[in-house]
Amino acid sequence: MRRALDLAAAIGAPGPATYPNPRVGCVLLGPDGSMIAEGYHRGPGTPHAEVDALAKAGEAARGATAVVTLEPCNHTGRTGPCSQALIEAGVARVVYAQSDPNPVAAGGAATLKQAGIEVEQGLYAAESRELNRVWTRAAELQRPYVTWKFATTLDGRSAAADGTSRWVSSRAARLDTHKLRALSDTMLVGTNTVAVDDPALTVRDLEDRVVGVQPLRVVMGERDLPDDRRIFDDQAPSLHLRTRDPRSALAALWERERRHVFLEGGPTLAAAFLEAGLVDEIVVYVAPFLLGAGRSAVADLGITTISDAFRPRVRSVDVLAPAAPGEEPNVRFILEPPQENQYRGEQ
Amino acid sequence: MRRALDLAAAIGAPGPATYPNPRVGCVLLGPDGSMIAEGYHRGPGTPHAEVDALAKAGEAARGATAVVTLEPCNHTGRTGPCSQALIEAGVARVVYAQSDPNPVAAGGAATLKQAGIEVEQGLYAAESRELNRVWTRAAELQRPYVTWKFATTLDGRSAAADGTSRWVSSRAARLDTHKLRALSDTMLVGTNTVAVDDPALTVRDLEDRVVGVQPLRVVMGERDLPDDRRIFDDQAPSLHLRTRDPRSALAALWERERRHVFLEGGPTLAAAFLEAGLVDEIVVYVAPFLLGAGRSAVADLGITTISDAFRPRVRSVDVLAPAAPGEEPNVRFILEPPQENQYRGEQ
Ligand SMILES: NC(=O)c1ccc[n+]([C@@H]2O[C@H](COP(=O)([O-])OP(=O)(O)OC[C@H]3O[C@@H](n4cnc5c(N)ncnc54)[C@H](OP(=O)(O)O)[C@@H]3O)[C@@H](O)[C@H]2O)c1
Ligand SMILES: NC(=O)c1ccc[n+]([C@@H]2O[C@H](COP(=O)([O-])OP(=O)(O)OC[C@H]3O[C@@H](n4cnc5c(N)ncnc54)[C@H](OP(=O)(O)O)[C@@H]3O)[C@@H](O)[C@H]2O)c1
Repeated sequence: MRRALDLAAAIGAPGPATYPNPRVGCVLLGPDGSMIAEGYHRGPGTPHAEVDALAKAGEAARGATAVVTLEPCNHTGRTGPCSQALIEAGVARVVYAQSDPNPVAAGGAATLKQAGIEVEQGLYAAESRELNRVWTRAAELQRPYVTWKFATTLDGRSAAADGTSRWVSSRAARLDTHKLRALSDTMLVGTNTVAVDDPALTVRDLEDRVVGVQPLRVVMGERDLPDDRRIFDDQAPSLHLRTRDPRSALAALWERERRHVFLEGGPTLAAAFLEAGLVDEIVVYVAPFLLGAGRSAVADLGITTISDAFRPRVRSVDVLAPAAPGEEPNVRFILEPPQENQYRGEQ
Repeated sequence: MRRALDLAAAIGAPGPATYPNPRVGCVLLGPDGSMIAEGYHRGPGTPHAEVDALAKAGEAARGATAVVTLEPCNHTGRTGPCSQALIEAGVARVVYAQSDPNPVAAGGAATLKQAGIEVEQGLYAAESRELNRVWTRAAELQRPYVTWKFATTLDGRSAAADGTSRWVSSRAARLDTHKLRALSDTMLVGTNTVAVDDPALTVRDLEDRVVGVQPLRVVMGERDLPDDRRIFDDQAPSLHLRTRDPRSALAALWERERRHVFLEGGPTLAAAFLEAGLVDEIVVYVAPFLLGAGRSAVADLGITTISDAFRPRVRSVDVLAPAAPGEEPNVRFILEPPQENQYRGEQ
């Protein structure tokens, strides 16, 4: 199973290259425990891990044990169901780590058992879940997982009184943001951020070059936007969702097979998502300087007394060493709202 | 000299027990390099380190080398000048680390040389300066050193909209604050903080008991305050400075031999000190939760554009692990304004 997990991770980081699918690895073992074949999933439109391994094994798969990181799927999507492929190949036993969290695909184990295959579950289940942490949570919630990112000064400002904000966060923090963007399949901002800041919302490298499979760039809000905004250029796909309803926006993105939304503001849109219980993770970059006045990094959340404060759990807190001369270290918090604050999509 | 520095540190942390004096250590060595006697300064009214060592050495001091962490003083305060004591004891050579930064006391080395004593300076000078970092800077500035401390949520709030603020920072952060308070000899707040929060401003231990030599508690502002405020209780001395002028307040405290002011707010008073160039160090505790609205932790500083932001140097940034169940880690920044922002007292 350790080997199967390593194979699953061979595709690299999760993100637009794998979504809407998870990372999965599979090892076929002979009755004597010897390795027959391995496989892993390379992303949408390519064979699932089990099918990849079975194809390499050919006739040798008969009577083998399939060790797979995720419960074999039971539905016909772009490829046929894996449970059927395992049955047809004559596999004798299936050992899997994580149960399929997706109600649409669940039932693979039951199908295998009905066909007389011995099935075992649970080994390394937590590790497999962690390997597809965001994908798993999205499947459970039946809507895209939402990461809200914001940058702030030590006194909670995102821009000075005159609107200038280049730069609040350090170069190290901005590079880190691009790494996190690359793990998502969707960038999301409000119409006002596009109108005022005109961000490109692409994933770029150290030299500011657009790199890798780009997330879908989404702007949300009812107003019209000029075509010349950078979000509408040809560096990556984009979409204007003419709604103010966070739930219907996520439902529309889920239908487009989006699994991970990276919400980069502004404060108005972020507050709407937070209040709707639609933020699953918050990434905050704190830059150690003061403005004393200016735009608040976080908008009004309807909180009036300290006991009602929004108190997430701290998943991690890290000091980002300066990446440019003359800069100061920034601090990155990764926070998780309590799960009861997480709104589940319509089933 | 290493031994002399250790002796100097024997008194413990700097703070009300040593101020207005520095920590100083002295070792007397015979012509053959053997140790004759050691001494250190225990605080105001007690012998200086040199005199402490000379008293123990008696006649053996004749022809000896005095190794001392700070340039021997030349003025008569509560005790006589050390330079004179060294001359009278017949010491042949004086090696000291740090030059006396205090214009009032300077000249010790010159006096020794005039008396025919061999004088050497510089060994471990940086270490000695660090040992009395705050005291040294105060002597150079001829005014008390000012540490401004504030606590903030991730979105820059010090209290919710209804004024409630118990607690913004974690128990670990509050305990850390008491440790830092204990290093200062003066607590300072504005009249409004006393009126609204009624803080005790004492140094307390884990069980909330008042411990150790207490700093002077100072409240600053023109309005009258009721006698029943906790700052005026008998747990520690207190003082109401009826002024709004940060410079004259510090001058008054300097005259009272205060060396280290711990400024705990509120935002209005802190902004006045910051704008006057009278903040030498900023300690910020960041608690990872959101209020969205409420009181700003930092008041208006007259900054309107990002390039004018107040950008201090980060001396340290530390994650404070939770000290109570259910709490989240807080982050402590220690910041230093650029030295050109530091106003020097009247000489
Ligand atoms: N610190 C940071 O990390 C960061 C990140 C991004 C932006 N910013 C700053 O934030 C500023 C823009 O923020 P902003 O808060 O004004 O704008 P925003 O959140 O980007 O956009 C607000 C607009 O989005 C539309 N909208 C969509 N759904 C909504 C909903 N559920 N509730 C309310 N409005 C909704 C509305 O416009 P319609 O009328 O079109 O519906 C609304 O006016 C910029 O100045 C930028 O510099 C900071
Ligand atoms: N987050 C934190 O760490 C922290 C720490 C402390 C307090 N607080 C909060 O801050 C609030 C109080 O803060 P605040 O800003 O209203 O009051 P403040 O700074 O404590 O006091 C302001 C008052 O001080 C006097 N003053 C003295 N020198 C002044 C000067 N140079 N400029 C202006 N005023 C001067 C004025 O009153 P006169 O009319 O008497 O001259 C002024 O109204 C409280 O609610 C408390 O909860 C937060």
